[in-house]
Amino acid sequence: MSNILNKIDSPKDLKELSIEELSVLASEIREALLKKVNVIGGHVGPNLGMVEATIALHYVFNSPIDKMVYDVSHQSYVHKILTGRKEAFTNPEKYHTVSGYTNPDESEHDYFKVGHTSTSISLATGLAKARDLKGDKENIIAIIGDGALSGGQAYEGLNNASVLNSNIIILVNDNEMSIAENHGGVYENFALLRETKGKAEKNFFKTIGFDYYYSEEGHNIEQLIEVFEKVKDIDHPVVVHMHTIKGKGLEVAEKNKEQWHSAFPGALNIKPDQKIQMPESYPSITKDFIVDKYEKGENVIAITAATPVFTGFTPDLRVQAGIHYTDVGIAEEHAVAFASGLARNGAKPILSIASSFVQRTYDQLSHDLSLNNNAATILVYAAGISAMDSTHLGTFDIPLISNIPNMVYLAPTCKEEYLAMLNWAVDQNSHPVAIRIPDWNLISTGIEDTTDYSILNKYKVMEKGSEVAIIGLGGFFKLGKKVKTMLKDKLGIDATLINPHFITGLDEDLLKSLESNHKLVITLEDGILDGGFGEKIARFYGASDVKVLNFGSKKEFTDSVPLNELYEKYHLTDELIVADIEKCLK
Amino acid sequence: MSNILNKIDSPKDLKELSIEELSVLASEIREALLKKVNVIGGHVGPNLGMVEATIALHYVFNSPIDKMVYDVSHQSYVHKILTGRKEAFTNPEKYHTVSGYTNPDESEHDYFKVGHTSTSISLATGLAKARDLKGDKENIIAIIGDGALSGGQAYEGLNNASVLNSNIIILVNDNEMSIAENHGGVYENFALLRETKGKAEKNFFKTIGFDYYYSEEGHNIEQLIEVFEKVKDIDHPVVVHMHTIKGKGLEVAEKNKEQWHSAFPGALNIKPDQKIQMPESYPSITKDFIVDKYEKGENVIAITAATPVFTGFTPDLRVQAGIHYTDVGIAEEHAVAFASGLARNGAKPILSIASSFVQRTYDQLSHDLSLNNNAATILVYAAGISAMDSTHLGTFDIPLISNIPNMVYLAPTCKEEYLAMLNWAVDQNSHPVAIRIPDWNLISTGIEDTTDYSILNKYKVMEKGSEVAIIGLGGFFKLGKKVKTMLKDKLGIDATLINPHFITGLDEDLLKSLESNHKLVITLEDGILDGGFGEKIARFYGASDVKVLNFGSKKEFTDSVPLNELYEKYHLTDELIVADIEKCLK
Repeated sequence: MSNILNKIDSPKDLKELSIEELSVLASEIREALLKKVNVIGGHVGPNLGMVEATIALHYVFNSPIDKMVYDVSHQSYVHKILTGRKEAFTNPEKYHTVSGYTNPDESEHDYFKVGHTSTSISLATGLAKARDLKGDKENIIAIIGDGALSGGQAYEGLNNASVLNSNIIILVNDNEMSIAENHGGVYENFALLRETKGKAEKNFFKTIGFDYYYSEEGHNIEQLIEVFEKVKDIDHPVVVHMHTIKGKGLEVAEKNKEQWHSAFPGALNIKPDQKIQMPESYPSITKDFIVDKYEKGENVIAITAATPVFTGFTPDLRVQAGIHYTDVGIAEEHAVAFASGLARNGAKPILSIASSFVQRTYDQLSHDLSLNNNAATILVYAAGISAMDSTHLGTFDIPLISNIPNMVYLAPTCKEEYLAMLNWAVDQNSHPVAIRIPDWNLISTGIEDTTDYSILNKYKVMEKGSEVAIIGLGGFFKLGKKVKTMLKDKLGIDATLINPHFITGLDEDLLKSLESNHKLVITLEDGILDGGFGEKIARFYGASDVKVLNFGSKKEFTDSVPLNELYEKYHLTDELIVADIEKCLK
Repeated sequence: MSNILNKIDSPKDLKELSIEELSVLASEIREALLKKVNVIGGHVGPNLGMVEATIALHYVFNSPIDKMVYDVSHQSYVHKILTGRKEAFTNPEKYHTVSGYTNPDESEHDYFKVGHTSTSISLATGLAKARDLKGDKENIIAIIGDGALSGGQAYEGLNNASVLNSNIIILVNDNEMSIAENHGGVYENFALLRETKGKAEKNFFKTIGFDYYYSEEGHNIEQLIEVFEKVKDIDHPVVVHMHTIKGKGLEVAEKNKEQWHSAFPGALNIKPDQKIQMPESYPSITKDFIVDKYEKGENVIAITAATPVFTGFTPDLRVQAGIHYTDVGIAEEHAVAFASGLARNGAKPILSIASSFVQRTYDQLSHDLSLNNNAATILVYAAGISAMDSTHLGTFDIPLISNIPNMVYLAPTCKEEYLAMLNWAVDQNSHPVAIRIPDWNLISTGIEDTTDYSILNKYKVMEKGSEVAIIGLGGFFKLGKKVKTMLKDKLGIDATLINPHFITGLDEDLLKSLESNHKLVITLEDGILDGGFGEKIARFYGASDVKVLNFGSKKEFTDSVPLNELYEKYHLTDELIVADIEKCLK
């Protein structure tokens, strides 16, 4: 282990170091970060940009009495190193002992589990108000950057923090980036503030009522300590606007900030000129679809809220697409309402968004879009049970989206169905349509899908059988096929296999017809059971003699649990499902 | 009918009038508004403040080619009068032919159904972008005010509208108010801009990148026409900041803006010094509970997002409460995250919010609050099936809230249960707790509730019977009692009656035990069935011989449909339910 980092077991160990030693420490930390990220992957760019600032924060403030709230918290690796968790970054055997986000279960220096953007200011305002209620005096610090200031919740937080009348420090880490480049008018003001070293009269933070400090050199520990000392124990709300370089210290990352926001294992071993051939994927075929449409003169427009990876548009293609591509920045609520407005005036918006972030837009999906029945298309990515961190689960979108009136939520099982659904969604003018992308891996059957999706809630019987009917939704249709095979092999049952296509409604005629020669209907869905698809089937058969078994995940926040463990636990393997069926039929 | 108004059948009729005639028209409109509102109630303050501005807008712009989007749209009465719907305001027999909000089904001059705040800028940005895609040239105007600029979605919209690079006009109706007074730092900037007649260097809108015009006299039609003419056909984003008086022209409303935001029928007949005795209500007993707690030295804090009516705190009491009462302004997302932060640092936050607005906070309820398991209390008001406008329905909160892990959602049936639940929620430190206020009318049984709510998901058997079990949730428990009575009378069945208390989980032991001597379990919930409480019961019994019937509302946006019609339609009367039970038992 390295020299100085070796001695740091808690923030107080920092306070005895000289500025020079702190600089050496920064180098050692950077080295450890790169080594670890190259083994297990992670948010390399954001953390390289926060090395000096985190050292200076812990040098000046007294965590955990003084409370730091990291926004998104994917930039908290250095904070973890300095607060007793360095081994998780220096000892490869312990790499997996900490998560990629702050977590109160890991350390008293972490106040919240956080993985969504723009929340830190509201959370910190709550901590500060509670401090005032109790008559305490500690510093409360929100650390926000990486584009999170375009999120509405951050603004609501700023607007309330600024009238708190007591200590709250908002450290704005201005690295000129979201995941991709920043979008939105306020970032032009930040550029002006950087150009004028914080002296411009036109100052967003001041108009909202904040005292304001600017720090140009976000990688100069001495200067950072100076400005943090100035605001420590301040008796009113203050913004410290700090200019940093995303990816600082790693040349490729400084040059290509978007690509190095997050790195996959081994990314550092890739040669700079090495072209990585990306396989065909749902984003890539969607991009092709959109390009084809606008080249034919259609008013399609691809929309992302700062996660362009889901759109399939690379930086070059975005420029080519011109008005047919829009990144609204981290502003998911706006993205959905904007799409509704576009559809209302005759355009064809296609918004790509992750399941865990579509959560931010329930009211926009309901009130702005579905109540108005505007024909926008929403593509929901990263949906389904996964080994993800508890802040990035994709298991909740079915209850969230499918219980909204007017909305049509579709579940394709393969490339061909997806393209047919997408084409229908974009061409029609009657419904808001969401499509749940089934998987990262594209399954292609090679068989064209000629389904007419304008006939809503029509399920497709893929194989006709009796006794047991298997309804396999979207990504879990393939599990349904396996169950059918095993049912035949083990119990000699020739089950009916159904691909429902629609999450948002029941094919009542088909379900009714099953009653004549089926004892049991099972549903398989890649998400939580509570409020989901299967429960609607259970309700439908509630008064009949047909029995129903619903398979899906439990209502819980899982945290980086391996997928096979989750499948075991939830009975989502063909063996466990067939055993449950056998028990039920006895 | 009055003289000039009589001649106005569409906006183009305005364009032939002199300024003097337009002023007379304003008086006639004001008169009609007051007369109508005094008969059927409505948003009197916001509309009185928009009379001149709406006349000037329609004088200058060419609706519906030029497109106006009213934020919240409760201030669109004058717009309706001028766009072919005046009879709904002048002819008492036609008062109910228009809704209180914009509605594309009513008129081509209305672009969206809108009843939630802060959405207009995003929606208008979508209209504008579609216009640009099509190569059209019309004006797009968002009309926002009444405190809606503190909402995060408005900020996300501003931030994107300002970089649109083409025509979009944001008319900010600054009446110095939300429903209550404004809260948040940005409003101090608006005050500065008013004081300086828009000339202050510190200008929120300019920092976000807007061109900016200020209009001091929001009730001077000539001046308004002048400024609107200046921005008409402008080729870039612009904010017109207009100063108006909420309630203009009605003395009591100008003096007491919060009370006259919305008026009940006959409100104008109340004498100014007449004291209205408010009956005991859920807000009033909650307020008493909170005052009692903080007087005993507990760190409770009442939170509202600009709807203080749900807190029970009158303006006087808010001042008395000091730090124990916070209005965060229209900023629901912040309110929930703020509550999470408060709870994390040892305070006892109690947030009161309407069902239709809690929708805006799904991600905060999930990610910021429940994932962190912080013990905040959320009181959900105005929940349940109702004759409300489609934008203000209270039927969706059960699927929204109850499918979030860790969250405890409680359903009291009376005052005593509510107080016991509230007391438990505030005292404990283990769970975020939401409580669904069952009704506006307080039911008191007079029997103290001694239930230990820390034993989660324990249902209460109120009357033991057999054959049929009735699970009556929250406000529908009273319907359950009626059904039990009628079952006895009509079918001679002695049904079991259950008060589940908990929406978020199943009492599996109890449900299991029912299997021995019950053929049918029915569930009654005051909200949509899809994703709701009853479906979980149906799933539980899916593989058993017990049949299940779920009663609740359909998945649809109803629009001001009388409650008894909805109850008929959804089979939510004792007669219809008993008939369904009879059919099922046959």
